[in-house]
Amino acid sequence: MSKDQASTKNPIVSPNAAGITFAFQGERGAFSEDAGHRFFGAASVALPRRNFDELFGVVESGEAAAAVVPIENTLAGAINKNYDLLLEHNLVIVGEAVLRVVHNLIGMPGASVSEIRRVYSHPVALAQCERFLRDNPTIEAVAAYDTAGSVKMVMEAGRRDEAAIAGLSAAVAYDAEVLVPSVESNPQNYTRFLVVARTDRAGAVQAAAPKGGLETKTSVVLSIGHRPGGLHHALGAFADEGINLTKIESRPIPGKPFEYWFYLDFLGAPEQPGVQRALTRLRASAEMVRILGTYPRAETPS
Amino acid sequence: MSKDQASTKNPIVSPNAAGITFAFQGERGAFSEDAGHRFFGAASVALPRRNFDELFGVVESGEAAAAVVPIENTLAGAINKNYDLLLEHNLVIVGEAVLRVVHNLIGMPGASVSEIRRVYSHPVALAQCERFLRDNPTIEAVAAYDTAGSVKMVMEAGRRDEAAIAGLSAAVAYDAEVLVPSVESNPQNYTRFLVVARTDRAGAVQAAAPKGGLETKTSVVLSIGHRPGGLHHALGAFADEGINLTKIESRPIPGKPFEYWFYLDFLGAPEQPGVQRALTRLRASAEMVRILGTYPRAETPS
Repeated sequence: MSKDQASTKNPIVSPNAAGITFAFQGERGAFSEDAGHRFFGAASVALPRRNFDELFGVVESGEAAAAVVPIENTLAGAINKNYDLLLEHNLVIVGEAVLRVVHNLIGMPGASVSEIRRVYSHPVALAQCERFLRDNPTIEAVAAYDTAGSVKMVMEAGRRDEAAIAGLSAAVAYDAEVLVPSVESNPQNYTRFLVVARTDRAGAVQAAAPKGGLETKTSVVLSIGHRPGGLHHALGAFADEGINLTKIESRPIPGKPFEYWFYLDFLGAPEQPGVQRALTRLRASAEMVRILGTYPRAETPS
Repeated sequence: MSKDQASTKNPIVSPNAAGITFAFQGERGAFSEDAGHRFFGAASVALPRRNFDELFGVVESGEAAAAVVPIENTLAGAINKNYDLLLEHNLVIVGEAVLRVVHNLIGMPGASVSEIRRVYSHPVALAQCERFLRDNPTIEAVAAYDTAGSVKMVMEAGRRDEAAIAGLSAAVAYDAEVLVPSVESNPQNYTRFLVVARTDRAGAVQAAAPKGGLETKTSVVLSIGHRPGGLHHALGAFADEGINLTKIESRPIPGKPFEYWFYLDFLGAPEQPGVQRALTRLRASAEMVRILGTYPRAETPS
């Protein structure tokens, strides 16, 4: 099965998505590339970038219309670097996607599991397959920089005694074979991605995206200084309006030891009167508030 | 200068600390070892462990009386793995220490900076010395597993064209030389460590620790389920009593996608009436509340 055939099997295809170029971090076949094609549809074009700085940079330069940015995993937690990059760059969040993460043991076509002596993957993926690795003590786990990149490496080396742990798309991308499917210890493994775009292109990107469900989400970042009860007062602005906070994440403020940025996600849009009142109250009490974006809430796939 | 001489120069020496054995993660000369000697005094014995799982394990088994656990850095943020281990293990927090992190370029005695072609360190340390590395483009940065371990590696290889980025104690531990001091980009670089012990030994460990300042801190972890406003109500229990929340950190609950544990630190002790009332209210509204420990607040060194 070639890569293009795999992409056309994608169940969520937006009719407006033709031609959108999105960037992702990692090698071809990465989970982020999957998430992008699910969001923008099979006709969209995926542009790989080596690291998260370059991922944001390529959207700012205009080379890609959007970037698909992993922001949290339901087992590993927040991807801190990307929270920081949201603040450093002036991009806007136009959407989100939630992907179920399925890890597979992938090797040379025709290889058998009993032959495998070494398995490569990203350290987080290896940790998420702890049970499989414990049950197969003859396989040595070796940390690598990337899940899909590990499949590429094994295939280029052409070794039947080596394998990688990665998603199905990585097997497809490098004509490798899934030797054991679903080797993850905990199936409740989801990664949430944010889709970010430049302000002047946000409208066009959002028009090309799937319409999503009925619910709308807004992300903001704020700092409250050292005031006692400051965070409680900030959250009270939302609670008093009955606004549902779905996520709070704190990150250190560089240069201000033990002060924090708070990233909040809530259901609602700034146009709604209740949200408007909450944001007005928030701006009165917080040191700084920035709206990062308003976008359709993604469903968590089963 | 030998390692023992360096330790006796430590300015904070508790008279009661003789004989306490504490575990730390990393190689000899790690920042965590420094933090432990500062906390327990120069006469304490430091036991190195390879990873954070083994660090908690050695306290549980009783081989070490306490472990010194890095929990947050003022530039890099929370050390997620250690938040999770606090919940997985039934240890109690008996103290905290805040260490100023100073990175140095360390190499063979007599080597000069112009000779260095490669520098090894932990990726976070390399990122924190970005400016120095940019100003010295002939030095290639290579990620390694540990700061102090990088010094050990360079000294064992005996190469004058290689160096490491690590703390002063690592130079002392391996008879290496500081070639350039303070190569960190941002001097507001502090790591906060928690000191954890087994419940049945907490009293003895706390008696051996420095008495600290006037302020007391308590750490709790709680889950609130999916209720709208749940976190606001939880924080309100503290705000209404005028209790100062110093830190909030969220971590995913494995198996419950997009639900979170919240780790809160606040000033006060469970014996105080206001704190007692707040905890009673918290227990009534939260799904689960666990007190992780009450301990003297550490000063942030200048």
